[in-house]
Amino acid sequence: MKNKPLILLVNDDGISSPGLRFLINICKKIARVCVVAPDKERSGSSHAITVEEKISFKNIKVTETYSEFACSGTPVDCVKLAVNKLCKKRPDLCISGINHGANYSISTLYSATVHAAIEGTIEGINSLAISHLNYSNKVDMSSYQSFLSLLIKYFLKNKIKKGITLNINLPDISYDKTKGVKLCRQGSGKWVEKIITSNKKNECIITGHFESEENSVDTDIWALDNSHISLVPIQIDMTNYDFIEKNKDIEHEF
Amino acid sequence: MKNKPLILLVNDDGISSPGLRFLINICKKIARVCVVAPDKERSGSSHAITVEEKISFKNIKVTETYSEFACSGTPVDCVKLAVNKLCKKRPDLCISGINHGANYSISTLYSATVHAAIEGTIEGINSLAISHLNYSNKVDMSSYQSFLSLLIKYFLKNKIKKGITLNINLPDISYDKTKGVKLCRQGSGKWVEKIITSNKKNECIITGHFESEENSVDTDIWALDNSHISLVPIQIDMTNYDFIEKNKDIEHEF
Repeated sequence: MKNKPLILLVNDDGISSPGLRFLINICKKIARVCVVAPDKERSGSSHAITVEEKISFKNIKVTETYSEFACSGTPVDCVKLAVNKLCKKRPDLCISGINHGANYSISTLYSATVHAAIEGTIEGINSLAISHLNYSNKVDMSSYQSFLSLLIKYFLKNKIKKGITLNINLPDISYDKTKGVKLCRQGSGKWVEKIITSNKKNECIITGHFESEENSVDTDIWALDNSHISLVPIQIDMTNYDFIEKNKDIEHEF
Repeated sequence: MKNKPLILLVNDDGISSPGLRFLINICKKIARVCVVAPDKERSGSSHAITVEEKISFKNIKVTETYSEFACSGTPVDCVKLAVNKLCKKRPDLCISGINHGANYSISTLYSATVHAAIEGTIEGINSLAISHLNYSNKVDMSSYQSFLSLLIKYFLKNKIKKGITLNINLPDISYDKTKGVKLCRQGSGKWVEKIITSNKKNECIITGHFESEENSVDTDIWALDNSHISLVPIQIDMTNYDFIEKNKDIEHEF
Protein backbone atom coordinates (compact mmCIF):
# COMPACT_ATOMS: atom_id res chain seq x y z
CA MET A 1 0.00 0.00 0.00
CA LYS A 2 2.89 2.34 0.71
CA ASN A 3 3.81 2.29 -2.98
CA LYS A 4 0.33 3.28 -4.01
CA PRO A 5 0.20 6.78 -5.48
CA LEU A 6 -1.29 9.67 -3.53
CA ILE A 7 -3.97 11.95 -4.96
CA LEU A 8 -4.54 15.37 -3.40
CA LEU A 9 -8.13 16.59 -3.70
CA VAL A 10 -9.22 20.20 -3.24
CA ASN A 11 -12.19 22.30 -4.34
CA ASP A 12 -13.79 25.72 -3.89
CA ASP A 13 -17.38 24.68 -3.12
CA GLY A 14 -16.30 23.51 0.33
CA ILE A 15 -15.54 20.22 2.08
CA SER A 16 -19.11 18.87 2.04
CA SER A 17 -19.80 19.53 -1.63
CA PRO A 18 -21.34 16.52 -3.47
CA GLY A 19 -18.99 17.04 -6.45
CA LEU A 20 -15.97 16.58 -4.17
CA ARG A 21 -17.59 13.56 -2.45
CA PHE A 22 -18.21 11.93 -5.85
CA LEU A 23 -14.54 12.48 -6.77
CA ILE A 24 -13.32 11.11 -3.43
CA ASN A 25 -15.19 7.84 -4.03
CA ILE A 26 -13.64 7.43 -7.48
CA CYS A 27 -10.11 8.25 -6.31
CA LYS A 28 -10.25 5.94 -3.26
CA LYS A 29 -10.57 2.97 -5.62
CA ILE A 30 -7.39 3.99 -7.44
CA ALA A 31 -4.99 5.50 -4.93
CA ARG A 32 -4.38 6.84 -1.48
CA VAL A 33 -6.25 10.11 -1.05
CA CYS A 34 -5.62 13.31 0.91
CA VAL A 35 -8.47 15.84 0.88
CA VAL A 36 -7.75 19.41 1.98
CA ALA A 37 -10.75 21.60 1.20
CA PRO A 38 -12.19 24.90 2.43
CA ASP A 39 -14.53 24.72 5.42
CA LYS A 40 -16.98 27.01 3.58
CA GLU A 41 -17.74 27.94 -0.02
CA ARG A 42 -14.93 29.98 -1.60
CA SER A 43 -16.20 30.30 -5.19
CA GLY A 44 -14.71 33.17 -7.20
CA SER A 45 -11.60 33.43 -5.06
CA SER A 46 -9.26 32.79 -7.99
CA HIS A 47 -5.60 32.52 -6.94
CA ALA A 48 -6.16 34.38 -3.63
CA ILE A 49 -3.99 33.49 -0.65
CA THR A 50 -4.25 34.43 3.02
CA VAL A 51 -1.47 36.91 3.82
CA GLU A 52 -0.12 37.33 7.35
CA GLU A 53 -3.26 35.91 8.96
CA LYS A 54 -3.82 32.65 10.80
CA ILE A 55 -5.40 29.71 9.01
CA SER A 56 -7.05 26.92 10.97
CA PHE A 57 -7.47 23.34 9.83
CA LYS A 58 -9.60 20.55 11.23
CA ASN A 59 -8.62 16.91 11.00
CA ILE A 60 -11.81 15.12 9.95
CA LYS A 61 -10.53 11.62 9.23
CA VAL A 62 -7.10 9.99 9.04
CA THR A 63 -6.45 6.34 8.17
CA GLU A 64 -3.49 4.64 6.46
CA THR A 65 -4.93 5.32 3.01
CA TYR A 66 -7.23 8.28 3.47
CA SER A 67 -7.03 11.64 5.19
CA GLU A 68 -9.39 14.60 5.16
CA PHE A 69 -8.98 18.15 6.47
CA ALA A 70 -11.26 21.19 6.43
CA CYS A 71 -9.33 24.45 6.20
CA SER A 72 -10.34 28.06 6.88
CA GLY A 73 -8.14 29.36 4.05
CA THR A 74 -8.67 29.78 0.33
CA PRO A 75 -8.44 26.84 -2.10
CA VAL A 76 -4.87 27.91 -2.99
CA ASP A 77 -4.01 28.01 0.74
CA CYS A 78 -5.41 24.44 0.98
CA VAL A 79 -2.95 23.24 -1.69
CA LYS A 80 0.01 24.99 -0.02
CA LEU A 81 -0.94 23.54 3.37
CA ALA A 82 -1.51 20.06 1.92
CA VAL A 83 1.81 19.88 0.09
CA ASN A 84 3.90 21.47 2.84
CA LYS A 85 2.27 20.05 5.96
CA LEU A 86 -0.78 17.79 5.79
CA CYS A 87 -0.04 15.17 3.10
CA LYS A 88 1.98 12.19 4.32
CA LYS A 89 4.04 12.21 1.13
CA ARG A 90 4.29 14.35 -1.99
CA PRO A 91 1.07 13.97 -4.03
CA ASP A 92 1.40 12.30 -7.44
CA LEU A 93 -1.67 14.07 -8.77
CA CYS A 94 -3.73 17.08 -7.65
CA ILE A 95 -7.38 17.32 -8.68
CA SER A 96 -9.56 20.34 -7.96
CA GLY A 97 -13.33 19.88 -8.13
CA ILE A 98 -15.67 18.59 -9.23
CA ASN A 99 -17.04 22.10 -9.27
CA HIS A 100 -20.79 22.65 -9.42
CA GLY A 101 -20.82 25.13 -12.30
CA ALA A 102 -18.89 26.04 -15.44
CA ASN A 103 -15.27 27.22 -15.47
CA TYR A 104 -14.41 27.81 -19.12
CA SER A 105 -13.58 30.88 -21.25
CA ILE A 106 -12.93 33.99 -19.12
CA SER A 107 -14.18 32.19 -15.97
CA THR A 108 -10.78 30.46 -15.97
CA LEU A 109 -9.42 33.68 -14.40
CA TYR A 110 -12.04 34.00 -11.64
CA SER A 111 -12.33 30.32 -10.72
CA ALA A 112 -10.70 29.03 -7.54
CA THR A 113 -11.35 25.48 -8.78
CA VAL A 114 -9.01 26.21 -11.67
CA HIS A 115 -6.50 28.19 -9.60
CA ALA A 116 -6.18 25.57 -6.84
CA ALA A 117 -5.12 23.19 -9.62
CA ILE A 118 -2.72 25.85 -10.96
CA GLU A 119 -1.15 26.01 -7.49
CA GLY A 120 -0.62 22.25 -7.74
CA THR A 121 1.17 22.89 -11.04
CA ILE A 122 3.32 25.58 -9.40
CA GLU A 123 4.27 22.96 -6.79
CA GLY A 124 5.41 20.72 -9.66
CA ILE A 125 2.51 18.25 -9.36
CA ASN A 126 0.40 16.94 -12.28
CA SER A 127 -2.80 18.94 -11.78
CA LEU A 128 -6.34 18.88 -13.16
CA ALA A 129 -9.32 21.18 -12.59
CA ILE A 130 -12.70 19.52 -13.19
CA SER A 131 -16.02 21.38 -13.38
CA HIS A 132 -19.55 20.32 -14.31
CA LEU A 133 -21.72 22.82 -16.17
CA ASN A 134 -24.72 22.28 -13.89
CA TYR A 135 -24.70 24.68 -10.91
CA SER A 136 -27.01 22.57 -8.73
CA ASN A 137 -25.59 20.57 -5.84
CA LYS A 138 -28.14 17.89 -6.70
CA VAL A 139 -26.85 17.08 -10.19
CA ASP A 140 -26.21 13.39 -10.88
CA MET A 141 -22.61 13.00 -12.12
CA SER A 142 -22.58 9.19 -11.88
CA SER A 143 -22.50 8.59 -15.65
CA TYR A 144 -19.01 10.15 -15.70
CA GLN A 145 -17.58 7.65 -13.20
CA SER A 146 -15.79 5.30 -15.64
CA PHE A 147 -14.53 8.17 -17.78
CA LEU A 148 -13.10 9.98 -14.76
CA SER A 149 -11.53 6.80 -13.47
CA LEU A 150 -9.70 6.31 -16.79
CA LEU A 151 -8.71 10.00 -16.87
CA ILE A 152 -7.26 9.86 -13.35
CA LYS A 153 -5.33 6.65 -14.07
CA TYR A 154 -3.93 8.22 -17.25
CA PHE A 155 -2.61 11.29 -15.42
CA LEU A 156 -1.14 9.21 -12.61
CA LYS A 157 1.01 7.57 -15.30
CA ASN A 158 1.69 10.39 -17.75
CA LYS A 159 3.53 13.55 -16.74
CA ILE A 160 1.97 16.83 -17.89
CA LYS A 161 4.57 19.29 -19.17
CA LYS A 162 5.98 21.66 -16.49
CA GLY A 163 3.92 24.80 -15.94
CA ILE A 164 0.72 23.44 -17.51
CA THR A 165 -2.61 22.68 -15.79
CA LEU A 166 -5.48 20.87 -17.52
CA ASN A 167 -8.84 22.60 -17.21
CA ILE A 168 -11.68 20.14 -17.84
CA ASN A 169 -15.38 21.01 -18.11
CA LEU A 170 -18.13 18.36 -18.29
CA PRO A 171 -21.23 19.32 -20.25
CA ASP A 172 -24.63 19.13 -18.54
CA ILE A 173 -25.63 15.86 -20.22
CA SER A 174 -24.95 12.26 -19.24
CA TYR A 175 -21.62 10.82 -20.40
CA ASP A 176 -23.13 8.52 -23.06
CA LYS A 177 -24.68 11.56 -24.77
CA THR A 178 -21.31 13.37 -25.05
CA LYS A 179 -19.09 13.29 -28.14
CA GLY A 180 -16.02 12.63 -25.97
CA VAL A 181 -13.06 14.83 -25.07
CA LYS A 182 -12.06 17.82 -27.19
CA LEU A 183 -8.65 19.41 -26.66
CA CYS A 184 -9.28 23.11 -27.18
CA ARG A 185 -8.29 26.67 -26.33
CA GLN A 186 -9.81 29.12 -23.84
CA GLY A 187 -12.52 30.92 -25.84
CA SER A 188 -13.01 34.65 -25.64
CA GLY A 189 -15.93 35.81 -23.49
CA LYS A 190 -16.96 38.24 -20.79
CA TRP A 191 -19.19 38.48 -17.73
CA VAL A 192 -21.60 41.35 -18.38
CA GLU A 193 -22.12 42.88 -14.95
CA LYS A 194 -25.37 43.88 -13.35
CA ILE A 195 -25.12 46.01 -10.22
CA ILE A 196 -28.07 45.29 -7.93
CA THR A 197 -28.46 48.13 -5.46
CA SER A 198 -29.70 47.33 -2.01
CA ASN A 199 -32.08 49.24 0.24
CA LYS A 200 -29.09 51.00 1.69
CA LYS A 201 -27.81 53.66 -0.72
CA ASN A 202 -24.16 52.64 -0.60
CA GLU A 203 -24.52 48.88 -0.84
CA CYS A 204 -24.83 46.60 -3.83
CA ILE A 205 -24.38 43.08 -5.13
CA ILE A 206 -22.37 42.58 -8.31
CA THR A 207 -23.85 39.87 -10.47
CA GLY A 208 -23.97 39.24 -14.20
CA HIS A 209 -24.27 36.81 -17.07
CA PHE A 210 -21.67 35.24 -19.34
CA GLU A 211 -21.50 36.33 -22.97
CA SER A 212 -19.23 34.53 -25.40
CA GLU A 213 -17.39 36.76 -27.85
CA GLU A 214 -16.73 33.99 -30.36
CA ASN A 215 -17.75 30.45 -31.13
CA SER A 216 -14.82 29.07 -33.18
CA VAL A 217 -14.67 25.30 -33.42
CA ASP A 218 -11.31 25.23 -31.53
CA THR A 219 -12.66 26.91 -28.35
CA ASP A 220 -13.96 25.46 -25.09
CA ILE A 221 -17.15 27.48 -25.66
CA TRP A 222 -17.86 25.61 -28.93
CA ALA A 223 -16.84 22.24 -27.50
CA LEU A 224 -19.28 22.51 -24.59
CA ASP A 225 -22.06 23.95 -26.77
CA ASN A 226 -21.61 20.90 -28.99
CA SER A 227 -21.74 18.13 -26.38
CA HIS A 228 -18.00 17.66 -25.94
CA ILE A 229 -16.00 17.42 -22.71
CA SER A 230 -13.60 20.38 -23.01
CA LEU A 231 -9.93 19.99 -22.07
CA VAL A 232 -7.90 23.22 -22.12
CA PRO A 233 -4.17 23.23 -21.31
CA ILE A 234 -3.56 26.46 -19.38
CA GLN A 235 -0.19 27.86 -18.43
CA ILE A 236 1.42 29.66 -15.49
CA ASP A 237 3.38 31.91 -17.84
CA MET A 238 1.03 34.82 -18.64
CA THR A 239 3.45 36.55 -21.04
CA ASN A 240 2.21 37.59 -24.48
CA TYR A 241 5.31 36.90 -26.61
CA ASP A 242 3.87 38.42 -29.75
CA PHE A 243 3.72 41.83 -28.02
CA ILE A 244 7.39 41.56 -27.03
CA GLU A 245 8.44 40.76 -30.60
CA LYS A 246 6.42 43.56 -32.18
CA ASN A 247 6.94 46.36 -29.65
CA LYS A 248 10.66 46.48 -28.87
CA ASP A 249 10.62 50.23 -29.65
CA ILE A 250 8.40 50.86 -26.65
CA GLU A 251 11.49 50.77 -24.39
CA HIS A 252 12.52 54.17 -25.75
CA GLU A 253 9.12 55.90 -25.63
CA PHE A 254 9.30 57.19 -22.06
CA MET B 1 -12.71 69.86 -19.27
CA LYS B 2 -15.41 67.42 -20.38
CA ASN B 3 -13.16 66.27 -23.22
CA LYS B 4 -10.32 65.51 -20.85
CA PRO B 5 -9.63 61.79 -20.57
CA LEU B 6 -10.61 59.85 -17.47
CA ILE B 7 -8.15 57.66 -15.56
CA LEU B 8 -9.47 54.96 -13.22
CA LEU B 9 -7.14 54.24 -10.30
CA VAL B 10 -7.32 51.14 -8.13
CA ASN B 11 -4.90 49.23 -5.88
CA ASP B 12 -4.72 46.38 -3.38
CA ASP B 13 -2.89 48.10 -0.53
CA GLY B 14 -6.04 50.07 0.29
CA ILE B 15 -7.39 53.59 -0.25
CA SER B 16 -4.92 55.36 2.05
CA SER B 17 -1.76 53.75 0.65
CA PRO B 18 1.04 56.28 -0.11
CA GLY B 19 1.74 54.55 -3.46
CA LEU B 20 -1.83 55.23 -4.59
CA ARG B 21 -1.68 58.82 -3.25
CA PHE B 22 1.53 59.45 -5.23
CA LEU B 23 -0.16 58.14 -8.38
CA ILE B 24 -3.29 60.23 -7.80
CA ASN B 25 -1.18 63.41 -7.69
CA ILE B 26 0.53 62.56 -10.98
CA CYS B 27 -2.73 61.62 -12.76
CA LYS B 28 -4.62 64.72 -11.58
CA LYS B 29 -2.20 66.89 -13.59
CA ILE B 30 -2.95 64.92 -16.74
CA ALA B 31 -6.60 63.90 -16.68
CA ARG B 32 -9.81 63.57 -14.77
CA VAL B 33 -9.42 60.87 -12.12
CA CYS B 34 -11.79 58.35 -10.54
CA VAL B 35 -10.32 56.36 -7.62
CA VAL B 36 -12.11 53.19 -6.47
CA ALA B 37 -9.94 51.32 -4.00
CA PRO B 38 -10.44 48.77 -1.20
CA ASP B 39 -11.22 50.18 2.25
CA LYS B 40 -8.58 47.81 3.72
CA GLU B 41 -5.50 46.00 2.50
CA ARG B 42 -6.34 43.19 0.05
CA SER B 43 -2.87 42.01 -0.93
CA GLY B 44 -2.66 38.50 -2.37
CA SER B 45 -6.30 38.44 -3.43
CA SER B 46 -5.46 37.84 -7.09
CA HIS B 47 -8.54 37.88 -9.36
CA ALA B 48 -10.95 37.18 -6.48
CA ILE B 49 -14.47 38.58 -6.68
CA THR B 50 -17.24 38.82 -4.11
CA VAL B 51 -19.96 36.32 -5.02
CA GLU B 52 -23.58 36.76 -3.89
CA GLU B 53 -22.60 39.02 -0.99
CA LYS B 54 -23.18 42.72 -0.46
CA ILE B 55 -20.41 45.19 -1.17
CA SER B 56 -20.47 48.64 0.38
CA PHE B 57 -18.84 51.75 -1.01
CA LYS B 58 -18.17 55.13 0.58
CA ASN B 59 -18.10 58.34 -1.37
CA ILE B 60 -15.02 60.17 -0.08
CA LYS B 61 -14.78 63.09 -2.50
CA VAL B 62 -16.56 64.09 -5.71
CA THR B 63 -15.79 67.18 -7.78
CA GLU B 64 -16.11 67.88 -11.52
CA THR B 65 -12.68 66.40 -12.22
CA TYR B 66 -12.00 64.08 -9.32
CA SER B 67 -13.92 61.37 -7.49
CA GLU B 68 -12.82 58.92 -4.83
CA PHE B 69 -14.58 55.88 -3.35
CA ALA B 70 -13.53 53.32 -0.72
CA CYS B 71 -15.04 49.90 -1.35
CA SER B 72 -15.44 46.84 0.88
CA GLY B 73 -14.85 44.47 -2.04
CA THR B 74 -11.75 43.05 -3.67
CA PRO B 75 -9.62 45.08 -6.11
CA VAL B 76 -11.34 43.28 -9.02
CA ASP B 77 -14.75 44.17 -7.50
CA CYS B 78 -13.54 47.80 -7.35
CA VAL B 79 -12.89 47.81 -11.12
CA LYS B 80 -16.28 46.21 -11.90
CA LEU B 81 -18.05 48.71 -9.65
CA ALA B 82 -16.09 51.65 -11.08
CA VAL B 83 -16.77 50.80 -14.72
CA ASN B 84 -20.42 49.82 -14.28
CA LYS B 85 -21.56 52.34 -11.66
CA LEU B 86 -19.19 54.85 -10.09
CA CYS B 87 -17.23 56.42 -12.98
CA LYS B 88 -19.01 59.30 -14.70
CA LYS B 89 -17.88 58.03 -18.10
CA ARG B 90 -15.97 55.06 -19.45
CA PRO B 91 -12.32 55.28 -18.29
CA ASP B 92 -9.69 55.81 -20.99
CA LEU B 93 -6.98 54.19 -18.88
CA CYS B 94 -6.98 51.98 -15.77
CA ILE B 95 -3.92 51.97 -13.52
CA SER B 96 -3.52 49.66 -10.55
CA GLY B 97 -0.94 50.60 -7.91
CA ILE B 98 1.53 51.81 -7.13
CA ASN B 99 1.95 48.68 -5.08
CA HIS B 100 4.35 48.65 -2.13
CA GLY B 101 6.22 45.47 -3.03
CA ALA B 102 7.25 43.39 -6.04
CA ASN B 103 4.83 41.74 -8.47
CA TYR B 104 6.99 39.99 -11.04
CA SER B 105 7.66 36.35 -12.00
CA ILE B 106 5.17 33.93 -10.34
CA SER B 107 3.82 36.75 -8.11
CA THR B 108 1.93 37.89 -11.22
CA LEU B 109 -0.59 35.13 -10.41
CA TYR B 110 -1.10 36.00 -6.72
CA SER B 111 -1.08 39.79 -7.05
CA ALA B 112 -4.35 41.71 -6.84
CA THR B 113 -2.50 44.80 -8.12
CA VAL B 114 -1.87 42.92 -11.36
CA HIS B 115 -5.32 41.31 -11.48
CA ALA B 116 -7.23 44.55 -10.91
CA ALA B 117 -5.46 45.82 -14.04
CA ILE B 118 -6.32 42.57 -15.85
CA GLU B 119 -9.99 43.22 -15.00
CA GLY B 120 -9.59 46.63 -16.67
CA THR B 121 -8.29 44.78 -19.75
CA ILE B 122 -11.30 42.42 -19.64
CA GLU B 123 -13.51 45.53 -19.64
CA GLY B 124 -11.72 46.63 -22.82
CA ILE B 125 -9.78 49.47 -21.18
CA ASN B 126 -6.02 50.15 -21.64
CA SER B 127 -4.66 48.87 -18.32
CA LEU B 128 -1.37 49.04 -16.42
CA ALA B 129 -0.25 47.46 -13.13
CA ILE B 130 2.57 49.33 -11.40
CA SER B 131 4.55 48.00 -8.42
CA HIS B 132 7.64 49.23 -6.58
CA LEU B 133 10.08 46.63 -5.27
CA ASN B 134 10.30 48.23 -1.82
CA TYR B 135 7.67 46.83 0.60
CA SER B 136 7.76 49.81 2.98
CA ASN B 137 4.95 52.35 2.98
CA LYS B 138 7.59 55.00 3.62
CA VAL B 139 9.56 54.54 0.39
CA ASP B 140 10.22 57.74 -1.58
CA MET B 141 8.95 57.24 -5.15
CA SER B 142 9.29 60.90 -6.17
CA SER B 143 12.20 60.33 -8.57
CA TYR B 144 9.81 58.34 -10.81
CA GLN B 145 7.36 61.23 -11.21
CA SER B 146 8.41 62.47 -14.67
CA PHE B 147 8.85 58.97 -16.02
CA LEU B 148 5.37 57.92 -14.83
CA SER B 149 3.86 61.09 -16.22
CA LEU B 150 5.32 60.29 -19.67
CA LEU B 151 4.21 56.65 -19.39
CA ILE B 152 0.64 57.61 -18.51
CA LYS B 153 0.42 60.17 -21.33
CA TYR B 154 1.75 57.55 -23.76
CA PHE B 155 -0.92 54.98 -22.82
CA LEU B 156 -3.69 57.57 -22.93
CA LYS B 157 -2.78 58.03 -26.61
CA ASN B 158 -1.71 54.53 -27.70
CA LYS B 159 -4.11 51.59 -27.59
CA ILE B 160 -2.71 48.37 -26.09
CA LYS B 161 -3.72 45.27 -28.09
CA LYS B 162 -6.99 43.63 -26.92
CA GLY B 163 -6.57 41.13 -24.10
CA ILE B 164 -3.16 42.43 -22.96
CA THR B 165 -2.26 44.13 -19.66
CA LEU B 166 1.12 45.74 -19.01
CA ASN B 167 2.75 44.67 -15.75
CA ILE B 168 5.38 47.22 -14.66
CA ASN B 169 7.80 46.86 -11.75
CA LEU B 170 10.04 49.70 -10.54
CA PRO B 171 13.38 48.64 -9.02
CA ASP B 172 14.23 49.82 -5.49
CA ILE B 173 16.62 52.56 -6.66
CA SER B 174 15.96 56.16 -7.69
CA TYR B 175 14.94 56.69 -11.33
CA ASP B 176 18.26 58.30 -12.38
CA LYS B 177 20.10 55.13 -11.28
CA THR B 178 17.94 52.87 -13.49
CA LYS B 179 18.89 51.70 -16.96
CA GLY B 180 15.40 52.55 -18.25
CA VAL B 181 12.53 50.30 -19.35
CA LYS B 182 13.09 46.70 -20.44
CA LEU B 183 10.32 44.85 -22.28
CA CYS B 184 10.56 41.28 -20.97
CA ARG B 185 8.79 38.05 -20.20
CA GLN B 186 7.52 36.68 -16.88
CA GLY B 187 10.50 34.80 -15.43
CA SER B 188 10.12 31.39 -13.82
CA GLY B 189 10.16 31.36 -10.01
CA LYS B 190 8.37 30.00 -6.95
CA TRP B 191 7.42 31.00 -3.44
CA VAL B 192 9.01 28.45 -1.12
CA GLU B 193 6.51 28.07 1.70
CA LYS B 194 7.20 28.05 5.40
CA ILE B 195 4.35 26.93 7.66
CA ILE B 196 4.56 28.70 11.00
CA THR B 197 2.53 26.81 13.55
CA SER B 198 0.78 28.80 16.22
CA ASN B 199 0.29 28.00 19.91
CA LYS B 200 -2.95 26.33 18.99
CA LYS B 201 -2.30 22.93 17.44
CA ASN B 202 -4.53 23.37 14.40
CA GLU B 203 -3.60 26.92 13.43
CA CYS B 204 -0.80 28.22 11.28
CA ILE B 205 0.43 31.09 9.14
CA ILE B 206 1.65 30.36 5.63
CA THR B 207 4.63 32.50 4.71
CA GLY B 208 7.64 31.99 2.47
CA HIS B 209 10.35 33.49 0.33
CA PHE B 210 10.67 33.95 -3.43
CA GLU B 211 13.18 31.83 -5.32
CA SER B 212 13.86 32.48 -8.98
CA GLU B 213 14.27 29.38 -11.14
CA GLU B 214 16.15 31.16 -13.90
CA ASN B 215 17.88 34.43 -14.64
CA SER B 216 17.80 34.70 -18.43
CA VAL B 217 18.41 38.16 -19.81
CA ASP B 218 14.88 38.30 -21.30
CA THR B 219 13.07 37.86 -17.94
CA ASP B 220 11.60 40.38 -15.52
CA ILE B 221 13.77 38.76 -12.82
CA TRP B 222 16.96 39.66 -14.71
CA ALA B 223 15.71 43.11 -15.67
CA LEU B 224 14.99 44.08 -12.06
CA ASP B 225 18.20 42.48 -10.76
CA ASN B 226 20.04 44.63 -13.29
CA SER B 227 18.52 48.04 -12.51
CA HIS B 228 15.89 48.07 -15.25
CA ILE B 229 12.22 48.97 -15.00
CA SER B 230 10.50 45.74 -16.12
CA LEU B 231 7.53 45.85 -18.48
CA VAL B 232 5.83 42.49 -19.10
CA PRO B 233 2.84 42.20 -21.48
CA ILE B 234 0.54 39.62 -19.88
CA GLN B 235 -2.53 38.10 -21.48
CA ILE B 236 -6.04 37.05 -20.49
CA ASP B 237 -5.78 33.94 -22.65
CA MET B 238 -4.11 31.30 -20.46
CA THR B 239 -4.06 28.61 -23.19
CA ASN B 240 -0.80 26.77 -23.90
CA TYR B 241 -1.04 26.37 -27.69
CA ASP B 242 2.06 24.19 -27.96
CA PHE B 243 0.35 21.51 -25.83
CA ILE B 244 -2.69 21.53 -28.15
CA GLU B 245 -0.52 21.08 -31.23
CA LYS B 246 1.56 18.25 -29.77
CA ASN B 247 -1.10 16.29 -27.88
CA LYS B 248 -4.06 15.87 -30.24
CA ASP B 249 -3.98 12.10 -29.54
CA ILE B 250 -4.97 12.71 -25.94
CA GLU B 251 -8.61 13.03 -27.04
CA HIS B 252 -8.71 9.26 -27.61
CA GLU B 253 -6.94 8.17 -24.42
CA PHE B 254 -9.96 7.97 -22.13
